[in-house]
Amino acid sequence: MDQNNTRTDVNSLGEFGLIDHLTNFFEIKQPSTIKGIGDDAAVLEYGAMCTVVSTDLLVEGIHFDLAYVPLRHLGYKSVVVNVSDIYAMNAIPKQITVSIAISNRYSVESLEELYAGIHAACAEYNVDLIGGDTTSCPKGMTISITAIGQAEKNQIVYRNGAKPGDLICISGDLGAAYLGLQILEREKRIWAEHPGVQPDLEGQKYIIGRQLKPEARKDVIETFRRIQLQPTSMIDISDGLASELFHICKQSNVGALLEEDGVPIHPEAQMMALQFKLDPITCALSGGEDYELLFTIDPSDIEKIKYLPEIYIAGEIIEKENGIKLHTKGGNLHDIKAQGWQHF
Amino acid sequence: MDQNNTRTDVNSLGEFGLIDHLTNFFEIKQPSTIKGIGDDAAVLEYGAMCTVVSTDLLVEGIHFDLAYVPLRHLGYKSVVVNVSDIYAMNAIPKQITVSIAISNRYSVESLEELYAGIHAACAEYNVDLIGGDTTSCPKGMTISITAIGQAEKNQIVYRNGAKPGDLICISGDLGAAYLGLQILEREKRIWAEHPGVQPDLEGQKYIIGRQLKPEARKDVIETFRRIQLQPTSMIDISDGLASELFHICKQSNVGALLEEDGVPIHPEAQMMALQFKLDPITCALSGGEDYELLFTIDPSDIEKIKYLPEIYIAGEIIEKENGIKLHTKGGNLHDIKAQGWQHF
Repeated sequence: MDQNNTRTDVNSLGEFGLIDHLTNFFEIKQPSTIKGIGDDAAVLEYGAMCTVVSTDLLVEGIHFDLAYVPLRHLGYKSVVVNVSDIYAMNAIPKQITVSIAISNRYSVESLEELYAGIHAACAEYNVDLIGGDTTSCPKGMTISITAIGQAEKNQIVYRNGAKPGDLICISGDLGAAYLGLQILEREKRIWAEHPGVQPDLEGQKYIIGRQLKPEARKDVIETFRRIQLQPTSMIDISDGLASELFHICKQSNVGALLEEDGVPIHPEAQMMALQFKLDPITCALSGGEDYELLFTIDPSDIEKIKYLPEIYIAGEIIEKENGIKLHTKGGNLHDIKAQGWQHF
Repeated sequence: MDQNNTRTDVNSLGEFGLIDHLTNFFEIKQPSTIKGIGDDAAVLEYGAMCTVVSTDLLVEGIHFDLAYVPLRHLGYKSVVVNVSDIYAMNAIPKQITVSIAISNRYSVESLEELYAGIHAACAEYNVDLIGGDTTSCPKGMTISITAIGQAEKNQIVYRNGAKPGDLICISGDLGAAYLGLQILEREKRIWAEHPGVQPDLEGQKYIIGRQLKPEARKDVIETFRRIQLQPTSMIDISDGLASELFHICKQSNVGALLEEDGVPIHPEAQMMALQFKLDPITCALSGGEDYELLFTIDPSDIEKIKYLPEIYIAGEIIEKENGIKLHTKGGNLHDIKAQGWQHF
């Protein structure tokens, strides 16, 4: 894609021309997609399967800062955020719609970058782009994505199925995306104060990658199918572990005992937390955007997951009266507060 | 709903509290809705039917002006715009997701007004609200709606099925919504220049209603089912008749001969067009937001629609080489230009 200073004004293409220009290189891969872009609505044909729908709205200045997020990464991440919600239902994403509102500050080339990222994510997660809307707006950029997935009715995992005795499990590691954001914000401040100073991102590749190019846990859902594991409840960790655990406990009408020792934190994230004078467990509990899966399993299923890579047992579901507690490495019991991201 | 000066800051509820507050009075009515709001994604169970999906993004300052659009009407219209796309596929809307981004200028009360309108439209069109996202934004309001509908595979009507000899049909009347907008814009200018002057909207109820509270043609699609009529192509008229006719002709690879005499225009719209020194047919061709249906039928089906109220035969599909023409009342032939709304 053209990286030099060519700038095509969005006006030159018109709305339909722009959509066509941005989407004509997407292919339809799903047999269930009967009609994608180009009519009033997309048409999907599902047999005996359930259809699962999730939607997210991403706003410049609230969810992303183009000072340090390349548009291609933003496009990729916008899709990841949505398919992650579908996986969190134990379903397989099949289609997405993407709508964008953009101010005239954006050129066609910048939108091409955005859509290149969306395209890469569609390829990675094997989903079809089936529609959307493109419009102008007075300021900034807003991206709205709806993801549609499929699962058998009895495969779908809700937030409300956890019961006392179930094991609390976490995929991957937590807190790194939040710390990646802290680094990027710090470098942005330094840049603002000392323009020209090159950002110091050495040795922080993993953390920054977790913020800029997160992945949804497609592999975990595929593993569940393979080992025939049906979690009792599940949610994706987009707003921090504490907030997600609260959702599961509230909807399942249970409590939880989380073991600090069991919460997976990457060594680079451990180090960086200390450098920012933050407690690593706080970053895992309250930092967002990890897009890992938090799920509970019946204790009789423990053999199925015990030796799986990147699946960690981090506690147990308890009776509601016993609250939602953290058992620290020091042996203390603390109440966990639901925090997570507050966008208001 | 409280109409006095109570103002609850959006911050006071938090994101989850706000969604809950705004959506807890919506009921699930569709048997196909297994899970609505409250999990990572909605779950829909469709049998042998096709799923149809459409999405729209509405931006303050581009698609609506809150200086004269009450929030309740805006909520209603946002849903109408989307279900209209589903009807235009000859499908029945079943579910919607609604995402909104709002600046802190909006109070909870104003959002309640918006959702009251959404709720009224859900009731009118018998659709379930099954999910969405609510977030803040630096400025204004953006509404993103995805509508999901259902139809048998062989019932679905695309834009690409028109063939020479087919009759061009239009439901309802055209141009009034555009003229309603002209009146509202005029009154806004007068208000800006002479604050306190009450708007002069007498005798313009129909036109202004078409702009502020449009309806989608659910009744027409129900009639098609009842009289067993399968249009050969169909599109909803959101961007003006000319633009929609171009879509059908382009995708069907045909031309069209439109009869000016056959294009339905309401008497109030006729009068108002002349008052604004506009040609009524131009308002119908290039004015948007009527949300009527433009469709083509096989000539052998003419008996089925001939005596239906509010269905007008307005021309004929012709060979592509013959172009897209308007046959005026004066007997002249003009090329039709695709205009419609340009949001860029």
